[in-house]
Amino acid sequence: MSTSSTPRRRWGWGHADDSIDDADLRERKAFLEDALGFPERPVLEPTPLEEATIPEPAIEPPARLASFCSSDRATRARRTYGMAPPENVRAFHGDFEPAPDVVAQPRTESDVADVLEWATENRVAVTPVTGGTGVAGGTSPPTGDRRDAYAGTVALDLRNLNEVLEVDEESRTALIEGGTMGPSINDQLEEYGLHLRHYPQSYELSGLGGWIATRSGGHYATRYTHIDEFVESVRMLCPAGTFETQRVPAHGAGPDANRLVCGSEGTFGVVTRAWMRVEPRPTYRSEAAVYFDSVLEAAEAIRRIVQAKLAPANCRLHDRVETSMYGLDDIDREMVVLGFESTDRPTDPAIDRALEICADAGGDCPDGPDHHGSGYDQHRSPDSDVVRWGQAFQLGGAGNAAIPLCVVRGTVETAVTWDRFPAFHEAMLETVRDALEDECGMGHVSTRFSHVYPDGPAVYYTFQAPGDRDPDRRIEQWQRIKRAALDTVMDHALTPTHHHAVGRNHKAWYARQIPENYGESLRAIKGVLDPAGVMNPGVLLDSATDGD
Amino acid sequence: MSTSSTPRRRWGWGHADDSIDDADLRERKAFLEDALGFPERPVLEPTPLEEATIPEPAIEPPARLASFCSSDRATRARRTYGMAPPENVRAFHGDFEPAPDVVAQPRTESDVADVLEWATENRVAVTPVTGGTGVAGGTSPPTGDRRDAYAGTVALDLRNLNEVLEVDEESRTALIEGGTMGPSINDQLEEYGLHLRHYPQSYELSGLGGWIATRSGGHYATRYTHIDEFVESVRMLCPAGTFETQRVPAHGAGPDANRLVCGSEGTFGVVTRAWMRVEPRPTYRSEAAVYFDSVLEAAEAIRRIVQAKLAPANCRLHDRVETSMYGLDDIDREMVVLGFESTDRPTDPAIDRALEICADAGGDCPDGPDHHGSGYDQHRSPDSDVVRWGQAFQLGGAGNAAIPLCVVRGTVETAVTWDRFPAFHEAMLETVRDALEDECGMGHVSTRFSHVYPDGPAVYYTFQAPGDRDPDRRIEQWQRIKRAALDTVMDHALTPTHHHAVGRNHKAWYARQIPENYGESLRAIKGVLDPAGVMNPGVLLDSATDGD
Repeated sequence: MSTSSTPRRRWGWGHADDSIDDADLRERKAFLEDALGFPERPVLEPTPLEEATIPEPAIEPPARLASFCSSDRATRARRTYGMAPPENVRAFHGDFEPAPDVVAQPRTESDVADVLEWATENRVAVTPVTGGTGVAGGTSPPTGDRRDAYAGTVALDLRNLNEVLEVDEESRTALIEGGTMGPSINDQLEEYGLHLRHYPQSYELSGLGGWIATRSGGHYATRYTHIDEFVESVRMLCPAGTFETQRVPAHGAGPDANRLVCGSEGTFGVVTRAWMRVEPRPTYRSEAAVYFDSVLEAAEAIRRIVQAKLAPANCRLHDRVETSMYGLDDIDREMVVLGFESTDRPTDPAIDRALEICADAGGDCPDGPDHHGSGYDQHRSPDSDVVRWGQAFQLGGAGNAAIPLCVVRGTVETAVTWDRFPAFHEAMLETVRDALEDECGMGHVSTRFSHVYPDGPAVYYTFQAPGDRDPDRRIEQWQRIKRAALDTVMDHALTPTHHHAVGRNHKAWYARQIPENYGESLRAIKGVLDPAGVMNPGVLLDSATDGD
Repeated sequence: MSTSSTPRRRWGWGHADDSIDDADLRERKAFLEDALGFPERPVLEPTPLEEATIPEPAIEPPARLASFCSSDRATRARRTYGMAPPENVRAFHGDFEPAPDVVAQPRTESDVADVLEWATENRVAVTPVTGGTGVAGGTSPPTGDRRDAYAGTVALDLRNLNEVLEVDEESRTALIEGGTMGPSINDQLEEYGLHLRHYPQSYELSGLGGWIATRSGGHYATRYTHIDEFVESVRMLCPAGTFETQRVPAHGAGPDANRLVCGSEGTFGVVTRAWMRVEPRPTYRSEAAVYFDSVLEAAEAIRRIVQAKLAPANCRLHDRVETSMYGLDDIDREMVVLGFESTDRPTDPAIDRALEICADAGGDCPDGPDHHGSGYDQHRSPDSDVVRWGQAFQLGGAGNAAIPLCVVRGTVETAVTWDRFPAFHEAMLETVRDALEDECGMGHVSTRFSHVYPDGPAVYYTFQAPGDRDPDRRIEQWQRIKRAALDTVMDHALTPTHHHAVGRNHKAWYARQIPENYGESLRAIKGVLDPAGVMNPGVLLDSATDGD
């Protein structure tokens, strides 16, 4: 059985010892060809580790760091990439060209500081990694000219800083180390009857430091879902020293320092610990699936729900393409999944009101709401559409199978105000469909609202198309489709990422999102916190000091 | 009648044509002497404008700015100070030594840019002002050595940028100019049936740009009360150019640029406009007053309410000293004011649940809840304790009367986690009582929770004591009491300000709150946005470029 201490796979989603089942792969191939109309898919074999291209290490750590550093091929390969589609393709085909020279697994904060000192003094690029599940190209060492500006590269893997150090039950906060993975955080909080209510889709394999560094979004649809909102105080170790904020519930003293750490993507320093807001698990839950004839009708219902401040835990829209891409083709309408939760009181009044609003907007809820949890003394109905959807919608299966089956698969997400949503949505679908047609001859694009706000939804587009057998060409197909989509996003003056960070893959569009003097401001901060420019070079922004 | 275009008073709260009624002053004097036990209070007369000390202007604006600039004594006197207690004392006694040389009232953003350009080229210190009601010493030109480092000073008064430029009813957002005062914002939104749900205590005389620059807190007790949460996007004009963020409901792209503007206190630039989240006025309201025997009991009830995520609009604690200082001495227990509001559904279930929690924690609600609003088709009970409290608790009266009556009056506020609250509270009361005794021979300190969070309350202490007749000595008394209190706050590793900004008065303690390299980061940003160091010198932090 995999545990959180089992290493990750070299490519794709999962732990090193999770294999891809042949039967699953054949089933997926048949689904793509029969249900989605893809031309016959090849079934490629991954390049074994011994045949993979992994450059020899350019540097060695000094003796004082050696006890927690490793330079063996397998460890370096596993810490080469995040989970962006081109990264998965390269890893599958044994291309580990950006592999770090050294993987450091510090056991203490003092070890972290030692690595940063060594890196600063010797011009070694540092890539901080918690789970390494990022999909924006932000957890990989630099390559090419940028790599050449450094003596070497080190992946700073936080896995050993994995404890809940302190729990304040009264204030419902916990001091958690940066390398603690999602499941481990909640295992450790379990004895207090608490949990950190943050479940990004990568939950199983990602952890606190990465969530904070990337402004991770949880799976809840409305407020208290972004990691930023759970951070009470944070400690970030930087080459220039410790950056630690005061433990207070709120303040109005200057620009919020916590918010500078959130989203810094390892370019200023390494998040080693944070006081996080935690809470008991809900005792009351209500959920329902509601169907609409069009995305715009569903969007209108969602707008009214969120503007009524009902604050559902779930309020996700999945269009009919999305449900069919996950094999639920009997659902031939747009589906809205609603969920309410409470630790304190029944949730049926809230979902009843939300369902009233849906009905007014043309929604149909054939099965009515399902109430469950210890407060209701009821179990969840095992065969509801919400449960079926939850089971179909798992990370891993379809994503991992896409790689041997040469499927071009990607996502683009943004957020848009309600007034601009219809025109933007139409433009996006057109752009992505055209790009799929041009690059792959066909393909599908589906739409989801992952999160919703009073002023607009976070919209998430997933595309899937039959890709070329040649991995370089397949990566190019992905890039062209993604670029066309991101160009459309920025033509509408939006953001290239709602909750997947900037990394390297969104950087060009991020530069269009922010005012130029904000980019300069961030570079100036980097000059203070990381004067030698060794922290995660090339991620988030191009900096004069980071080797370009 | 005063309107928002009427100039402010030269000292104290209110418009220029609001007089202090002699009868009110006598009533206040009697109350202080009889009810609060103060020694006999003198009744001083304010120094008339013609006898006031207002230095001759050191500089003149160039011809191209002259049409919207003024250097007359009255205008300069009114834009000399904010509302910090020592500022009010100095203004009352005719000391306008920091008076700006020029008061600019730009009519357009282009005028603002022209002022910044002139200031940058001629080393003129710029003090941006919206309402000028700040209590932290952040809206006043520099003095002493810092002043001498500049050729002159200009107060940049935004009063003419006062329009709601655009309303997006669907997304419930409005584009509002930075100089728009509270009442004017909502007058302009009224025709859309919307309001900006932000009511700081200074609402009547303050406005959007100042709220954003100082991270203003509204009078609501729980979420969606800080101005930061209402800002969808913002435009700040800086000496180095325009800093404008994209209009999106949310994003995860890098550290949030909006949050850098919020709290920058005019040291980077001037907030000229922002897209703000607005909403309809509530149609359902429920409120109640609940009484407890001790502050700790009341705190426990509040903790449970906020941790149950009931999200009351009001959830304020006023201790018995506080109610008696406002003349409600028949309330001889700790009072918790609870309020719930909704635009969508009845609020009685929420307040009923909150009252259950209060009763469990030992609270007594003799009158029960009061439900009102158009949804209930009911008016507010005119003589409830909540209403009586609201009437007694008005800015102005007591504050303005304190000045001629030589009362030392001040506040200190912070936020603290629940686990540390009891020990901190005890230490604060002891510190402030000792300081009052030492400085003034006697005095009172009262306690309030102004805002509450799942992890702790914002605690607000108000002190009142008989001060010296000599204004310099009276300012010194205030400073010593305030410093002792702030030292205790920082000895507990908290924040010197929850919603009153840093300004100059909290700067020394703010430096203790933030990590040193965050201070350096902010200075580095200032170097980018305000390279000549002309923006609000000496406020928030000491900067190498700003004249020290």
